[in-house]
Amino acid sequence: MVVGGDAGGMTAASQARRLRGPDDLEIVAFERGHFTSYSSCGIPYFVGDVVDDLDELIARSPQEFREKHAIDARTRHEVEEIDLDKRAVKVRDLEGGGDRWESFDHLMIGTGALPARPPIPGIDARNVFGVQTLDDGVEIKRMLAADSPRRAVVVGAGYIGLEMAEALVLKGLDVCVVEAAPQPMTTLDPDMGALVADAMRALGIKVLVDEPVEGFETSDGAVTAVATKNESLPADLVVLGLGARPNTGLAEAAGLEIGDATKAVVVDQRMQTSAPGVWAAGDVTEKFHRVSRRKVAIPLGTHANKEGRAAGINIGGGYETFPGVVGTAVTKVCDLEVARTGLKESEAADAGFEIVTATIDSTTRAGYFPGAAEIKTKFIAEKHSGRLLGAQILGREGAAKRIDVCATALWCEMSVDEMLNVDLSYAPPFSPLWDPVLVAARKAWQAVESERT
Amino acid sequence: MVVGGDAGGMTAASQARRLRGPDDLEIVAFERGHFTSYSSCGIPYFVGDVVDDLDELIARSPQEFREKHAIDARTRHEVEEIDLDKRAVKVRDLEGGGDRWESFDHLMIGTGALPARPPIPGIDARNVFGVQTLDDGVEIKRMLAADSPRRAVVVGAGYIGLEMAEALVLKGLDVCVVEAAPQPMTTLDPDMGALVADAMRALGIKVLVDEPVEGFETSDGAVTAVATKNESLPADLVVLGLGARPNTGLAEAAGLEIGDATKAVVVDQRMQTSAPGVWAAGDVTEKFHRVSRRKVAIPLGTHANKEGRAAGINIGGGYETFPGVVGTAVTKVCDLEVARTGLKESEAADAGFEIVTATIDSTTRAGYFPGAAEIKTKFIAEKHSGRLLGAQILGREGAAKRIDVCATALWCEMSVDEMLNVDLSYAPPFSPLWDPVLVAARKAWQAVESERT
Repeated sequence: MVVGGDAGGMTAASQARRLRGPDDLEIVAFERGHFTSYSSCGIPYFVGDVVDDLDELIARSPQEFREKHAIDARTRHEVEEIDLDKRAVKVRDLEGGGDRWESFDHLMIGTGALPARPPIPGIDARNVFGVQTLDDGVEIKRMLAADSPRRAVVVGAGYIGLEMAEALVLKGLDVCVVEAAPQPMTTLDPDMGALVADAMRALGIKVLVDEPVEGFETSDGAVTAVATKNESLPADLVVLGLGARPNTGLAEAAGLEIGDATKAVVVDQRMQTSAPGVWAAGDVTEKFHRVSRRKVAIPLGTHANKEGRAAGINIGGGYETFPGVVGTAVTKVCDLEVARTGLKESEAADAGFEIVTATIDSTTRAGYFPGAAEIKTKFIAEKHSGRLLGAQILGREGAAKRIDVCATALWCEMSVDEMLNVDLSYAPPFSPLWDPVLVAARKAWQAVESERT
Repeated sequence: MVVGGDAGGMTAASQARRLRGPDDLEIVAFERGHFTSYSSCGIPYFVGDVVDDLDELIARSPQEFREKHAIDARTRHEVEEIDLDKRAVKVRDLEGGGDRWESFDHLMIGTGALPARPPIPGIDARNVFGVQTLDDGVEIKRMLAADSPRRAVVVGAGYIGLEMAEALVLKGLDVCVVEAAPQPMTTLDPDMGALVADAMRALGIKVLVDEPVEGFETSDGAVTAVATKNESLPADLVVLGLGARPNTGLAEAAGLEIGDATKAVVVDQRMQTSAPGVWAAGDVTEKFHRVSRRKVAIPLGTHANKEGRAAGINIGGGYETFPGVVGTAVTKVCDLEVARTGLKESEAADAGFEIVTATIDSTTRAGYFPGAAEIKTKFIAEKHSGRLLGAQILGREGAAKRIDVCATALWCEMSVDEMLNVDLSYAPPFSPLWDPVLVAARKAWQAVESERT
């Protein structure tokens, strides 16, 4: 039985079905919303009309799960309680009404994350939107069409905040992004984040940093302005991009162990929670960070899929572990690609590492080749060993995916002097003779060596 | 003292200069041609007018070497003999005339490669061109302008052959590519190579495979047609893309050790030849292939630069080793990107591996995202361990550089089951939820597992 019809839960369901036939294992999945297995990462592109059709964001519909995978996917069914002793869940039919108990042998928890909604007065006004479920995307788009808002304020300048800001610019709105931190993209170091702010401003977005939101001015149940310490920003529409926290309510009430630091469900290597036969995957669970060696909560669909795969194999009677993450993420702001992996400077220090850094400017293709674009690459390395600890890349087309080499190097605990000779592909349309990743590795190694002498 | 003014030699010279000042180490470099430190990889783009200015292909001119790096770079000077006992080289001044002996403490050999010119009757005709030095590129371009050739035959369908074929199509010529092997791009497996042939034909290039060239029909010292077993192909211009062999003449005559299998100069980990104080780097040297664990000769500028760096550090009194290659290469045929790394099927078998393969089709971005393009990824893995042995990628924009993740994985001897969970970057504009590399790893792992049961 699966609670939550998105990436973590449904990947597990599909994987378990691959190992065990319909006569051998009955699979029921409950989803509170209208949709299953959708790309919530695609919501900003749906809102911005980059992707027109909502159906394109849906990998598999409930019908497909039923017909092709023999998985009884029930949308608009909310699980209200998990009883571990009875091994049953209490389910409310949100359309038909009424509660009933359904029993399980294995339970898969994929309840995802909830967008952070700090208790700021006015936050529950009707034109304040989170960006978590496909239903949220539908609501925002409906509001854009119905009310023709002119001014939007996006609260929070993380991935979702930035992507939504760009989407709303595409829809012709005046957009202001308000961020409490001194820079957008706090997953980057401040020097790199400042360049993201420049790119946002070049797009016509007003960017306010160091400005925590203190309240919402409302009228008739709708926000009319967003108040910070210094400003009152008129708003017809507010989007919350304050990140998401693991949606652990059900798991916690059932008595499952929750991580102190992460506030996410604790799982073992095989994605089993503290209760036997109860599994979890996706944004609701904590993950092992292979560089900091700490547990983290990073809501990201790609983790949810991998974790769901592992959980599903185990539920199906196989054996699989999930080896953790290195904190890779990528986005774009207009044509500026932004990527990061591993630890940023402050995270590395926090994990106890002494570090050196190296930042280099290069081009995405041979400098003389048409379309060669700027790319800035920053490496963070362990000061004494030269081990790569993190990387950040900003640049135009072809820049961001280079972070995957760094992610793979982090995975294998490579040092920057090992990295600088790696046989990366070279041809003028694809790279300078020394790929920017190699140049950054070389410069980081010089920094390590100069610390030694 | 440096013999050869391109990547291997001049990178070594620059690196040695970084470690030792002009008063401490005198550096003289001799180059037979007119240019130093140029991108021979850029020649097809220069011929095709993708890059207009020859100077753009030159990283550093002799003047720059002299003025900024205190390196006495002498072009149009050909080294004719190396005397290891006298520790001197005999140099001919190709412009001023006359020979003289110049002595050295350290000698750096960077004589590069020579385009293969099989002893086919007529191959020395004046309209038959190799593509190795910038001078070759200048000659071809001059001939295109002066003689307005209409029909070109490219002999050999490797990287240079394909790039030159496209360049000549861009210049408006009718182009035929003749290849002795059953497919173009013999660095790929036949199934992938066949798709490259399709892309070439779509570009209007006539592609003949299984057709060794048997002769050139000439008139007045110029080729008029290229003869194969079955055809006579009219030609106003012939380009040889038959690969290149290490230019070891000087080294061999001096008694330096040459590899039996590679016919390239043998070097140790630090790029020192069999004679103390005599170093070599670039196309003239053999390299250690980290997957096959054999010595190979792979002419590629990116290797030359890395080897030159290592040699230069050692010449300068430092310590550096060159750890080898994994056989990564990339090119494009029109908008089809082609990349490979590691061993192809036959190479893996030849090295003694038992293998499984997996080929998957995916998209470069989330399937619903505008610009999502096809990408085909093939993995070759060791049958029993699942260790990755090689990868090949064909696809449209954004496809090829993904090979770098595979190259890094090969470098670290990862198995495909380790790879399938690596934390690669995901966002809809950059990748499907599971990056194609991860999907290929997953499928290859399934192949390994199914062999076990």
